[in-house]
Amino acid sequence: MTTNPSTWAHDPDRLFAAEPRQRELARHLYEGVAELPLVCPHGHVPPRLLADPDATLGTPAELFVIPDHYVTRMLYSQGVSLASLGVPTRDGSSVETDHREIWRRFAAHFYLFRGTPTGLWLKDELVRVFGVTKPLNADTADAIYDELTEKLAEPEYRPRALFKRFHIEVLCTTDAATDTLAEHRSLQREGWTNVRPTFRPDAVVNLDAEGWRENLDRLGEVSGLEVTDYRRFVAALEARRTFFKALGATATDHAAETPHTERLSDREADAIFQRALAGESSAEDAARFTAHMLLEMARMSAEDGLVMQLHVGSLRNHNRAVFARFGPDRGADIPLQTEWTRSLRALLNAHGSDPAFRLVVFTLDESTYSRELAPLAGHYPALRLGPPWWFFDSVKGIERFLDAVVETAGVYNLAGFNDDTRAFASIPARHDVWRRTVCNWLAGETLRGVLDESEAAELAHELTYGLARRTYRLA
Amino acid sequence: MTTNPSTWAHDPDRLFAAEPRQRELARHLYEGVAELPLVCPHGHVPPRLLADPDATLGTPAELFVIPDHYVTRMLYSQGVSLASLGVPTRDGSSVETDHREIWRRFAAHFYLFRGTPTGLWLKDELVRVFGVTKPLNADTADAIYDELTEKLAEPEYRPRALFKRFHIEVLCTTDAATDTLAEHRSLQREGWTNVRPTFRPDAVVNLDAEGWRENLDRLGEVSGLEVTDYRRFVAALEARRTFFKALGATATDHAAETPHTERLSDREADAIFQRALAGESSAEDAARFTAHMLLEMARMSAEDGLVMQLHVGSLRNHNRAVFARFGPDRGADIPLQTEWTRSLRALLNAHGSDPAFRLVVFTLDESTYSRELAPLAGHYPALRLGPPWWFFDSVKGIERFLDAVVETAGVYNLAGFNDDTRAFASIPARHDVWRRTVCNWLAGETLRGVLDESEAAELAHELTYGLARRTYRLA
Amino acid sequence: MTTNPSTWAHDPDRLFAAEPRQRELARHLYEGVAELPLVCPHGHVPPRLLADPDATLGTPAELFVIPDHYVTRMLYSQGVSLASLGVPTRDGSSVETDHREIWRRFAAHFYLFRGTPTGLWLKDELVRVFGVTKPLNADTADAIYDELTEKLAEPEYRPRALFKRFHIEVLCTTDAATDTLAEHRSLQREGWTNVRPTFRPDAVVNLDAEGWRENLDRLGEVSGLEVTDYRRFVAALEARRTFFKALGATATDHAAETPHTERLSDREADAIFQRALAGESSAEDAARFTAHMLLEMARMSAEDGLVMQLHVGSLRNHNRAVFARFGPDRGADIPLQTEWTRSLRALLNAHGSDPAFRLVVFTLDESTYSRELAPLAGHYPALRLGPPWWFFDSVKGIERFLDAVVETAGVYNLAGFNDDTRAFASIPARHDVWRRTVCNWLAGETLRGVLDESEAAELAHELTYGLARRTYRLA
Repeated sequence: MTTNPSTWAHDPDRLFAAEPRQRELARHLYEGVAELPLVCPHGHVPPRLLADPDATLGTPAELFVIPDHYVTRMLYSQGVSLASLGVPTRDGSSVETDHREIWRRFAAHFYLFRGTPTGLWLKDELVRVFGVTKPLNADTADAIYDELTEKLAEPEYRPRALFKRFHIEVLCTTDAATDTLAEHRSLQREGWTNVRPTFRPDAVVNLDAEGWRENLDRLGEVSGLEVTDYRRFVAALEARRTFFKALGATATDHAAETPHTERLSDREADAIFQRALAGESSAEDAARFTAHMLLEMARMSAEDGLVMQLHVGSLRNHNRAVFARFGPDRGADIPLQTEWTRSLRALLNAHGSDPAFRLVVFTLDESTYSRELAPLAGHYPALRLGPPWWFFDSVKGIERFLDAVVETAGVYNLAGFNDDTRAFASIPARHDVWRRTVCNWLAGETLRGVLDESEAAELAHELTYGLARRTYRLA
Repeated sequence: MTTNPSTWAHDPDRLFAAEPRQRELARHLYEGVAELPLVCPHGHVPPRLLADPDATLGTPAELFVIPDHYVTRMLYSQGVSLASLGVPTRDGSSVETDHREIWRRFAAHFYLFRGTPTGLWLKDELVRVFGVTKPLNADTADAIYDELTEKLAEPEYRPRALFKRFHIEVLCTTDAATDTLAEHRSLQREGWTNVRPTFRPDAVVNLDAEGWRENLDRLGEVSGLEVTDYRRFVAALEARRTFFKALGATATDHAAETPHTERLSDREADAIFQRALAGESSAEDAARFTAHMLLEMARMSAEDGLVMQLHVGSLRNHNRAVFARFGPDRGADIPLQTEWTRSLRALLNAHGSDPAFRLVVFTLDESTYSRELAPLAGHYPALRLGPPWWFFDSVKGIERFLDAVVETAGVYNLAGFNDDTRAFASIPARHDVWRRTVCNWLAGETLRGVLDESEAAELAHELTYGLARRTYRLA
Repeated sequence: MTTNPSTWAHDPDRLFAAEPRQRELARHLYEGVAELPLVCPHGHVPPRLLADPDATLGTPAELFVIPDHYVTRMLYSQGVSLASLGVPTRDGSSVETDHREIWRRFAAHFYLFRGTPTGLWLKDELVRVFGVTKPLNADTADAIYDELTEKLAEPEYRPRALFKRFHIEVLCTTDAATDTLAEHRSLQREGWTNVRPTFRPDAVVNLDAEGWRENLDRLGEVSGLEVTDYRRFVAALEARRTFFKALGATATDHAAETPHTERLSDREADAIFQRALAGESSAEDAARFTAHMLLEMARMSAEDGLVMQLHVGSLRNHNRAVFARFGPDRGADIPLQTEWTRSLRALLNAHGSDPAFRLVVFTLDESTYSRELAPLAGHYPALRLGPPWWFFDSVKGIERFLDAVVETAGVYNLAGFNDDTRAFASIPARHDVWRRTVCNWLAGETLRGVLDESEAAELAHELTYGLARRTYRLA
């Protein structure tokens, strides 16, 4: 099942079209942006990795396999159990603890990633970050494990060293509304102001979130406001936003099953909130409350200037047995059809033309790119389209996105790129796929006479650097 | 933000693939159709422009900016107010009246159209129709304004002169059912029989149309039938169709939010109609009445032979503040998911196999191309697929359309091209994008061995000329 | 309307990209798989064709036109009546019986298939299977009819001879649950074990199937179990599965309008079943019973190891007049929007992680490829994605499928190819389109640096041979 060329090298022209003129122009455009700093306005890197100067990336299994649901779900889909990959359980049942064994299972199945972005990222990380020169498979697993283990122990492979080597200009983490941001405060005291928090209130806003009641109590504690009604709930959220903003946050992030927005009266909102406090709220209550709170969050963003991000359309924990044993975020979240035109109407009518407001949306339903999202972004001043998300952060996913949205929304209504990853060491690989694919796409547009070369070069800079900085108010 | 190559010229091979063999064949196919007359079976050019021999195209701002919602929405999306672009209001509030200033704003933001069909059309119009040789931007705005102003005053830039220069074989306008067609009558008296009206009854058929009651009274006046019940309403519409047909109309046009069709009994239809007359009809009444009237219109088309066009799937006036101040058609219409298979079933079962009937459909939901529309058109004799509409009248939009429908419906179930524009001077540019893109697509099919060269040449002629003429019964 | 190059030959590089390097690599990959045996795990070839050693393929009209709804629907869409093509009626009304005349009509309209997969298959069949050297059109119709008639009378054009010439390794038919499989038994007695049945119970499972009650009685007869209640119904189905399996079946096949799955209690299931027996079941009863029976069939598959196939999303018999006169399967089945994520949740939670269970799904809604199906297949071990189905078994359909699913699901969660045809003589043409298109796609991935050449060669073998054998447990 595996391939054994003698060395594992990168094609320097990878991801560029075969046609020689397009390839040449793509390479030229790429050379102009390849060394730009990385702007990372949205992602899930644990701040601890950077706050603790002695933090390491762990074993090869901890770095590449155990926490990465892109990796574990693919192996699971071909019959490899999550337990055999060391994925921690919440029911106390035992899992594989031998990290070398986990790595061997991963290596033996690495061929499953052929043709996938995960495969591209993993190879790029192994080759460019860690200097691996043999293709990963069952035969090379042990030698590569040893090589990685050795390197991961070296100071230059600690997260802070890599942060500099990666040339990261700014990295935004994603943090619960109830987080004390102790690590961010520590970072800032040390002068690491290029790591910023992002305000994510889902766990207190979505009434059906696991542990909502405990989360709410925690919100009361950290805000110093006892949250006994809807009015105080809003006040507590506002207080937390102020706190996050003071620590450098420029954005918030919100997840929901649908983008439905709907204004409730304060009385209705409080009635639902009281039912939730009493443990008596229904699924419909939760849906309407989320729809209302998205509007409230937009209102707050229009007031405090935090950029609002909305990630919509995933049915979480589709596989109930996996959820019961291993918990959330194990690769069993499946997209749903999504409706944006009617759903966002309330929010966009309320704030979509307000220059103080900025909304960045992310979808898992590609059929909405050209039908709904590009027309909306091509009209409302507040709206920007986030880059292809999750499954679609891939070569063809990026191309379909640009093909579908640019003709209607133009380039300047896009939000540039974000890597959206918890896998810190994969950040350069992800940006590099975006940069190469964007440059190749612009080269194609240029050779067809849609753009001229100087326009293409400007747009390459915007798409890989400028738009992300300006969209997220980081510039 | 702008580019300044010394001259602004067209790539003669624009929109053709970079690959040399495909480019060469595309060019060859294009040369065979580039000079064919323009057949324009559907559009929104005001007949006044041609009926009045002294009509002009106005100032550069009036020609390129103020009435063009493709242009103004993009500037609006980047924070330029519609008022500052001179878009007229209906609340009496003041807007920019200095047309040179409007033009400067447009020029300074022209870079926003990079990668968009609007950008291609505008450049083509400026370069090929008006002979502009400098790229449009803030620096060149004034000089180009002066140059255009001078040319627009010349006789050869009057609409009638351009009509001939553009080599338009036939141009169909779109006219309210209540229109007296005074301008068309005047044109025909002068022998301008290549300008034809199209019967569009939405304003009297959709009960929730703005000013429905006044429109209905007007229908009574022009038809000479007092419209007091459903039976007379149908009779009045039939009378108007006869009148339009006598003045050269070969088609009707209908817009609806969905393509739902449903037969009501005459009694039900009249009951709804009476509620509407009494100002008491509901949203559901209006939806059901439209669904019923689409069937009635199909019945009439089967009888009088007027080709029925159906444009479906836009949620109009999404931005209520823009609608309140500036009215409809300001670039705030956003597509909706559309369902065709069940929706058209009643209509296609009633008339879809009748050789006298012809239906041309247009969608804003590209996911329906391959899933619903191509299979329907590949079965029902009456059905033809209109070209990519609105946001999708673009290079990639055309390619996605052909890619999605031809394999299932073939080429001969397509309706060819129509420009669907109110921007008269942009007509050649729009046809040229279609012709180039179609020829390049056919070249691609030929090089892959799906077509041979003589077939490709025949299909190029059909797609750019023959199909439009035959579909709309203009041949 | 027709083209007349002097000879009708195949481009040996057909369906490969124009770009020379990609073309060369595609050809190289294709050469590695072109001669592999054909694995045909799903299709509709009548077993009689092979069971009877003297069976012939009939007249050219019987072979190419009358029974092929891909062909007759396209002619119907352009005004050629089904009766004039000899399509048999069920109302006793007369149809064309002169097969030469039918052939002439087909030949005169052969240009309608330009750009379609049907056109590619027909040409390939005529050129490669029958050695035709003139393009088919009105002028050549008679000569080609004579040539085909002569060949069809020769022993080497009998189905059994072609089976060997085509190098078919295994061919699975599709057979009603009530079928006695007499022909399969006869074939096996002769040692033709490479023709296998597939268990298709729709006609007894879908309560609203035409003739359900008679089908049920027949089920009782062949199973020897009087089917008077739900429990016996299940037992009868299990008995039939055992019988099919004993005769070589490795799979079942199920069609439904939606993939909705829902567990009913045995009591509810029996209540619905009793209503159906009494002729009193509702449309909702039928829908819920189908949803429940899909779960039951999955349960049985997990027990007996038969691979479960699910073909979903066609609204059958859209044109009621065609159905009334000509019956089902006449090219008037139109796809519907399909929802998989919520619909399959019950089934996949029950059996999706069971190594004994295997589910292969087919969709007519391409928007679900990347949004729902690839994420589901990239998680659940039991799930494999069937190849593009029906309208999408085409060059661009295959490319869109691979583009949409591989990045998320990888290649190893695909089911390879099946030809799904009742047109026996078109089998090699269909596999050849798949093989060429797949090899060209893999060449493209390789030139972009996503795969290396040895990986591409391995994947070409898997996609054209290995995956189909292993998915259907034929290896």
